[in-house]
Amino acid sequence: MTLYLNLAEELAARIEQGLFRPGERLPSVRTLSQEHGVSLSTVQQAYRQLEDQGLATPRPKSGYFVNQLRQQPELPQISRAPQRPVEVSQWEQVLELVSEPPSSDVLQLSRGIPDIDVPTLKPLLRSLSRLSRRQSLRELSYGAVEGEISLRQEVARLTLDSGCQLAAEDIVITTGCHEALSAALRAICQPGDIVAVDSPSFHGVMQALKGFGMKALELPTDPLTGISLEALEMALEQWPIKAIQLTPSCNNPLGYVMPEANKRALLALAQRFDVAIIEDDIYGDLAYHYPRPRSIKSFDEDGRVLLCSSFSKTLAPGLRIGWIAPGRYLQQVLHMKYMGTGMSAQLPQLAIAEFIRDGLYQPHLRQMRKQYARGREQMTGWVSRYFPPGTRVSQPQGGFMLWVEMPQGFDSLRLNRRLAASKLQVAPGSIFSAAGKYRNCIRLNFACSHQPSMEAAIRQVGETVTQLLAEDA
Amino acid sequence: MTLYLNLAEELAARIEQGLFRPGERLPSVRTLSQEHGVSLSTVQQAYRQLEDQGLATPRPKSGYFVNQLRQQPELPQISRAPQRPVEVSQWEQVLELVSEPPSSDVLQLSRGIPDIDVPTLKPLLRSLSRLSRRQSLRELSYGAVEGEISLRQEVARLTLDSGCQLAAEDIVITTGCHEALSAALRAICQPGDIVAVDSPSFHGVMQALKGFGMKALELPTDPLTGISLEALEMALEQWPIKAIQLTPSCNNPLGYVMPEANKRALLALAQRFDVAIIEDDIYGDLAYHYPRPRSIKSFDEDGRVLLCSSFSKTLAPGLRIGWIAPGRYLQQVLHMKYMGTGMSAQLPQLAIAEFIRDGLYQPHLRQMRKQYARGREQMTGWVSRYFPPGTRVSQPQGGFMLWVEMPQGFDSLRLNRRLAASKLQVAPGSIFSAAGKYRNCIRLNFACSHQPSMEAAIRQVGETVTQLLAEDA
Ligand SMILES: Cc1ncc(COP(=O)(O)O)c(C=O)c1O
Ligand SMILES: Cc1ncc(COP(=O)(O)O)c(C=O)c1O
Repeated sequence: MTLYLNLAEELAARIEQGLFRPGERLPSVRTLSQEHGVSLSTVQQAYRQLEDQGLATPRPKSGYFVNQLRQQPELPQISRAPQRPVEVSQWEQVLELVSEPPSSDVLQLSRGIPDIDVPTLKPLLRSLSRLSRRQSLRELSYGAVEGEISLRQEVARLTLDSGCQLAAEDIVITTGCHEALSAALRAICQPGDIVAVDSPSFHGVMQALKGFGMKALELPTDPLTGISLEALEMALEQWPIKAIQLTPSCNNPLGYVMPEANKRALLALAQRFDVAIIEDDIYGDLAYHYPRPRSIKSFDEDGRVLLCSSFSKTLAPGLRIGWIAPGRYLQQVLHMKYMGTGMSAQLPQLAIAEFIRDGLYQPHLRQMRKQYARGREQMTGWVSRYFPPGTRVSQPQGGFMLWVEMPQGFDSLRLNRRLAASKLQVAPGSIFSAAGKYRNCIRLNFACSHQPSMEAAIRQVGETVTQLLAEDA
Repeated sequence: MTLYLNLAEELAARIEQGLFRPGERLPSVRTLSQEHGVSLSTVQQAYRQLEDQGLATPRPKSGYFVNQLRQQPELPQISRAPQRPVEVSQWEQVLELVSEPPSSDVLQLSRGIPDIDVPTLKPLLRSLSRLSRRQSLRELSYGAVEGEISLRQEVARLTLDSGCQLAAEDIVITTGCHEALSAALRAICQPGDIVAVDSPSFHGVMQALKGFGMKALELPTDPLTGISLEALEMALEQWPIKAIQLTPSCNNPLGYVMPEANKRALLALAQRFDVAIIEDDIYGDLAYHYPRPRSIKSFDEDGRVLLCSSFSKTLAPGLRIGWIAPGRYLQQVLHMKYMGTGMSAQLPQLAIAEFIRDGLYQPHLRQMRKQYARGREQMTGWVSRYFPPGTRVSQPQGGFMLWVEMPQGFDSLRLNRRLAASKLQVAPGSIFSAAGKYRNCIRLNFACSHQPSMEAAIRQVGETVTQLLAEDA
């Protein structure tokens, strides 16, 4: 990172920690330059960065002041989900989201796409290119149904970071995390079975439950700590729940990291009631703090946790390479994987294995974590500035998604229709709930918040929200 | 094709048609050279080719004679399947087959891998390579859940060859034909439902039925004309069958093409009993005769046929790109596709679309059809020569698979164990039956029968078969 960005981040952190208070005057350019041993122009650049982020404002002849506006907006409310298993709906809305190919003239605020236009990914593309030129049986043929052994080895090593101790043999490569989750559900549950889920929750799982004829029991979920363990315990007592499915580290869409104590307590509950845990860790490696949070799987002693993940958020979604460590359900999952898609594509598996083996994965992650942490600041600032007062905003601890809650009664589907003319699309909140709740919420993607057009786009969304609220008032 | 191969094929055809009879002397080299206006050495090469194929033998100073041995071996018997729905078994044997990555030192007699080391595929590899170098949102990101529109257009055009009239909008791209079949089954059937299948039948479908808790009703199947329509009609009267799943054109493993009249009659039956047809057409484009056979889908008027296919046999399996034209079940199939794997990989879709658009698909197919037709002759010849008398052999009309039937009681699993030491593996017949029938059969792959090691390999298999039979006698 350049000097001025470093400095800007430090100042931003102090503002967030309350060391500089709203309305307070910030140190002069000269003072900072001496304190930090950097040039005057570096400090000026840093201040302009703070200004861009909505954290500080210059006043003529008196220097920079901490913005009044700049407070962390309030958090979304703890979700209050229906307290009974429901059949999943919302397919039409999901379809609308996923049936449009990402077009270069529509800003990707809606879909879960990371920034893939970064220098640290280039070597991966070179591998792909080189491997596809080579015309060998290995790349173009059927591989093993479990996946390429070299990749399974690398994945086993990567999961050490989340505290796991897995061997290559414990891992099955899948067609994205979608297939991992879908195989996990089918390995454990039958049609009619009840699965407890966090809420809001990834729409792919909701739709899989729908497709398999399973029922979702949405659990109240705190925007900072995740599902309510009390509610889960009650639910386990009341219903014949077969599995708990959740994304505890850098949750999609809320961004929280479930505290380690909660993860342990959750596992203990699962043991007591003898249910399986399907842990989605797809964003886990993108936690802003290093070392990354531990997975529930890392505490698992009797193989009841099925860890699902993919390279879709950390590298690129188009690779369609994910994995699952299914614990004691390995044989069932392998069968489900075979019947679902047969073997996985060899070429991307080999290229990714090479990328990791060459030591390029961690440096890439470091870059992305920083970029997304900055993105969160920017996006939060813009939403604070451009959305109507009272808008609530999540505080993600990783990943590149912001959850934004408008007052009850607001209709995010109407918002999307209104935005279509401006070539903008957000993810409507209702697709993150089995019962179609959260219609007053939206999810925004800030992976590419450095793009010049982004601020104007968020401003436009905010203004449209304000308009819609005014029309309804 | 070179001159000598042309000539060899013509001579082989005459032998097959009985114009030259077993034991008869073939025309002299000089005569043929004059008749066909080719050089003496071309005729000599052609004769050596016939010799290699086991069709003719030279006798010193008297020229070439049609082999006595060279008769079409007897066909396998019409399968007599259990006359009631059964739960599928055989997962362990399938797993053994698919959990080994194809190793360069094991001859691929067992798996369904086409020859991918051919010049006509090179441009596809160049496209893949070029597209992966280009670092654009389109290749590395999520596409549309239905698949890339450019590929769907090309697929729609390709299906004209089998008599279909489909639009891009009728087609959903999938992760191989596996996903097409699996999505089709789930779109139509519930656990416990009965699906009628041809028998022997592709093990992927058998295993999908198993995984979904559906039951298979195996239909008696003629090695030249496919499933018995009489048996199907009886079954439809007797059981609440939900769908008929079959591979009517260039069947795997038997290779037959169901006559057009039978296809129409089958559709009429499906209409009368109001059941869906899941038609697997994965080998259809590899019929030895051009134009290729019509699909059942091409006669479908009320959208009850779900046409499933992929590029795994015509181009390369590692691409993992297939498709489905689900007729009236489009919405359900789309939902199943989304929940199973989300979006399909963009890169191979774009490369394949380019390959077809550039007019390279048909010339490639022409090459492969010829190669596989020759392969069939070679393989049939070798099996006739090296397997014990009484061995029955299929007469495939397309594709690259030969079905070989030994006497009842022969154990193909034992054969595989015996062959392992020689780094050979065949596909045991039992995996092609829900009930584990056909243990006395094996399936051989002749896609690469031009490889120098192939004849020796088949000889070794044949000798091992003979040994095993002798041991049991
Ligand atoms: C929480 C979560 N799980 C799973 C997925 C699906 O991932 P993949 O693209 O690897 O199938 C996503 C992507 O949107 C996600 O956000
Ligand atoms: C008849 C048949 N259907 C489907 C498949 C699966 O094809 P894919 O590799 O495209 O998933 C095969 C391949 O073995 C097959 O032989």
